[in-house]
Amino acid sequence: MKIDLNSDLGESFGAWKMGDDAAMLDIVTSANIACGFHAGDPLVMHRTMSAAKERGVSIGAHPSFLDLWGFGRRSILGERPDDIEKMVIYQIGAAAALAQTLGHPLAHVKTHGTLGNMAMVDIDLARAVARAVRLFDRDLILVAMPGLALEKAGLEQGLRVAREIYADRTYDDDGNLTSRKIPGAVIEDVAVAVKRVLTMLDEQAITTVGGRTLPVTIDTICVHGDNAHAVAMASTLRTALETAGYTLEAFSKGGGPQN
Amino acid sequence: MKIDLNSDLGESFGAWKMGDDAAMLDIVTSANIACGFHAGDPLVMHRTMSAAKERGVSIGAHPSFLDLWGFGRRSILGERPDDIEKMVIYQIGAAAALAQTLGHPLAHVKTHGTLGNMAMVDIDLARAVARAVRLFDRDLILVAMPGLALEKAGLEQGLRVAREIYADRTYDDDGNLTSRKIPGAVIEDVAVAVKRVLTMLDEQAITTVGGRTLPVTIDTICVHGDNAHAVAMASTLRTALETAGYTLEAFSKGGGPQN
Amino acid sequence: MKIDLNSDLGESFGAWKMGDDAAMLDIVTSANIACGFHAGDPLVMHRTMSAAKERGVSIGAHPSFLDLWGFGRRSILGERPDDIEKMVIYQIGAAAALAQTLGHPLAHVKTHGTLGNMAMVDIDLARAVARAVRLFDRDLILVAMPGLALEKAGLEQGLRVAREIYADRTYDDDGNLTSRKIPGAVIEDVAVAVKRVLTMLDEQAITTVGGRTLPVTIDTICVHGDNAHAVAMASTLRTALETAGYTLEAFSKGGGPQN
Amino acid sequence: MKIDLNSDLGESFGAWKMGDDAAMLDIVTSANIACGFHAGDPLVMHRTMSAAKERGVSIGAHPSFLDLWGFGRRSILGERPDDIEKMVIYQIGAAAALAQTLGHPLAHVKTHGTLGNMAMVDIDLARAVARAVRLFDRDLILVAMPGLALEKAGLEQGLRVAREIYADRTYDDDGNLTSRKIPGAVIEDVAVAVKRVLTMLDEQAITTVGGRTLPVTIDTICVHGDNAHAVAMASTLRTALETAGYTLEAFSKGGGPQN
Repeated sequence: MKIDLNSDLGESFGAWKMGDDAAMLDIVTSANIACGFHAGDPLVMHRTMSAAKERGVSIGAHPSFLDLWGFGRRSILGERPDDIEKMVIYQIGAAAALAQTLGHPLAHVKTHGTLGNMAMVDIDLARAVARAVRLFDRDLILVAMPGLALEKAGLEQGLRVAREIYADRTYDDDGNLTSRKIPGAVIEDVAVAVKRVLTMLDEQAITTVGGRTLPVTIDTICVHGDNAHAVAMASTLRTALETAGYTLEAFSKGGGPQN
Repeated sequence: MKIDLNSDLGESFGAWKMGDDAAMLDIVTSANIACGFHAGDPLVMHRTMSAAKERGVSIGAHPSFLDLWGFGRRSILGERPDDIEKMVIYQIGAAAALAQTLGHPLAHVKTHGTLGNMAMVDIDLARAVARAVRLFDRDLILVAMPGLALEKAGLEQGLRVAREIYADRTYDDDGNLTSRKIPGAVIEDVAVAVKRVLTMLDEQAITTVGGRTLPVTIDTICVHGDNAHAVAMASTLRTALETAGYTLEAFSKGGGPQN
Repeated sequence: MKIDLNSDLGESFGAWKMGDDAAMLDIVTSANIACGFHAGDPLVMHRTMSAAKERGVSIGAHPSFLDLWGFGRRSILGERPDDIEKMVIYQIGAAAALAQTLGHPLAHVKTHGTLGNMAMVDIDLARAVARAVRLFDRDLILVAMPGLALEKAGLEQGLRVAREIYADRTYDDDGNLTSRKIPGAVIEDVAVAVKRVLTMLDEQAITTVGGRTLPVTIDTICVHGDNAHAVAMASTLRTALETAGYTLEAFSKGGGPQN
Repeated sequence: MKIDLNSDLGESFGAWKMGDDAAMLDIVTSANIACGFHAGDPLVMHRTMSAAKERGVSIGAHPSFLDLWGFGRRSILGERPDDIEKMVIYQIGAAAALAQTLGHPLAHVKTHGTLGNMAMVDIDLARAVARAVRLFDRDLILVAMPGLALEKAGLEQGLRVAREIYADRTYDDDGNLTSRKIPGAVIEDVAVAVKRVLTMLDEQAITTVGGRTLPVTIDTICVHGDNAHAVAMASTLRTALETAGYTLEAFSKGGGPQN
């Protein structure tokens, strides 16, 4: 039994630091590297990728809307899907170049923030993202939530898709995350979060807030890394997974996700 | 007798237009595509590259300091060469990805504005640029002024270097451009500029303002494209070159520059 | 009979030019000056304000979402009204400082692009804008479309509101502009646009695409200035207004709008 | 005996945090608020100013070159002094507007980073900064190092100038800071730094690394606040000053600096 832990890293920018990338890279098996549009700059990207390489952590591009001020978390409407396709190609290309030149090529792509949220529900936007990945490198794995638009778009484009679940979030009956505005949407209690993850893995299913059970394939678990609490949760989760008999390994290695 | 004409294109940004790229792409044989740091955005880049492909114009990345407000023309000191290396890799990678996905791969790299000026005289910075190119793709041709630091750095890295002269600029005794602040540094008279170019090609040498003759190899002639006068000069120059028996062809094609 | 013509000016940025500000400043009586968030930079702002002062053209701040790439035309959701309030204060303050130091103080505020569109229909956002204006300087006049949220918010805050109509746009039954996506939403024919404006002024009413007649107060007419056609329309409109007996005068002068 | 402690605050940006502003605002008497060009955004500015007001801490604008990536620490050459004047007016105006609307008006202006470094030695640039302050509000106090270009420019413009010394830096024989590249330029030992400050205050003179004693007026002491060590040093310094009989008070209050 193998499982991957992924986290959004390289989210510093210039003089500003975010998260404890070194600590997280000791825990996770896949790192999503910010590409300069919501965070990250060429130096931060290179530094984070180097640190990932040293630890054998697989890396992927983490493209976003262009929104440093809003950290890619604001909706920027009015983009045409074709435009998003080019915006994503630009970011993947920049990240791929840095990754390649240090000898640790990109293995996957995961959309960030609102671009990611929109790609889960807007099939046109999801197709633009999937096209961008396929056009650039059809061997890159697309990370997506199971059962939503981006997974569908990735499969349409013939991409391998890594299905991810969130360790500390609840799900609505569509299999999407419940809004952060709803009390309880974010699970703060580490023990509860860990138990949920183990149950989801065991059952290969998501339990929704409405009480439904949605069968899913799970290739990777997303953990946050932007504060001390997050690092502690990630560490605890990793230990619990190992104790339960899981081998932590990047989804890009070994068998990996299949179409 | 073959010669290349190159121009800086794709320098629009969002709602702002600059230059008449369509007109210039009917004249030049190589286009230097802005990479988003001084001008250009993913959509402008893609549009310009597509137009170049349609006309069989060879394309290259045109990386710059990060300076939209100053259009890459201001000196930004305080960057370490290693940092510039990553900054250049990022931009080449982004441009290469867009170029590759539309089936018209990058052929060369030319530095923009102050980054370019500095790379001609600062060997550490020049080596950072050359390393960036070689690390990303050793088949990319580096455009440089003959006899200056960047040419030397490119050759050190084993890159093919395309030597360029400027159609409308005078040269100092070091083989560098005279400062724009000096009256006469920019040649406005089209006939004078054309005659100078033909002489330089004929003699394979640059005549400096100090009266020296510097023997150089010439692979490409840089023409500006950011105003109507520039388009007229480029067009007149092309016609004069053809009349003089030159075949206009991208330096990336045919024999191309050798080390 | 007095009327004002207003236009969005100072929309160049760094090396990029937009519109023919000099030509427009010979036509309009009020200029909305971009504040650096969607266009404009401190030098462009100062230059445009100086040119307005020379011609006796009244000036106002033209705040926007922070979106240079999208020129302030994209929706950026996820901002809280309180945040928008500060964002608008920042921009008005920056513009007011430049205006004051050259001896031509701001007279009004008009929201730009999507921020403006949203302020017409979203009362919370409209109130944030109106609060920003009132907190900074209660003598500034707020420009708003008659009958919509921003006018209401301005009046609630005790501001004088200048009601504007658009010369080249059609209206829906709510008194808002019809979407540009609808064929005919933008009136290209100068003669038609001029005739519509004269009728609206004569009747002090807007005729909607649904055939309704909405009585409105009209203090100013918005004309575009970002291309040659726009300059021609503005010029023709001004002449037609003068011929029809109107005196062109900034709404900030003389009587001006009352609450 | 009164003395002021000033620190650069409000240097967070969007999702990125920098420094412990709350802790520093409990220690200092004057806060230099980043204006959005190197750090700070309208929300961060407003939040920091509000926190300063709550504690009775005087505030000033902290303008910079436009350089978020480089945090205003890189030299951006090629700006004309007239352009810098407008750039500084823009930033002071934006900060002044936020300060005024929350009822805690700006008291001073202090230049940031490389803009500050250059203003200490380049009299043309220094005059541009001083003109910006005087044109906007001649009652604003200009913070400058004693004996250098900016102090001179401020006095020429008729501004009150607050002379500042640095708690943790050594001085060269010109009265400027020694380069950070020189070992020992930054004093890490809190006890040493505190003793130096008390000596400088006592003697009203700076002792240089070359052994010279430069008589100076001292209105304020600059302390850093961007890490835990910095907060500890500031706190220790404040206690030592109080123990030595000094009353900590903003230079903008009471007598304050005279011309």
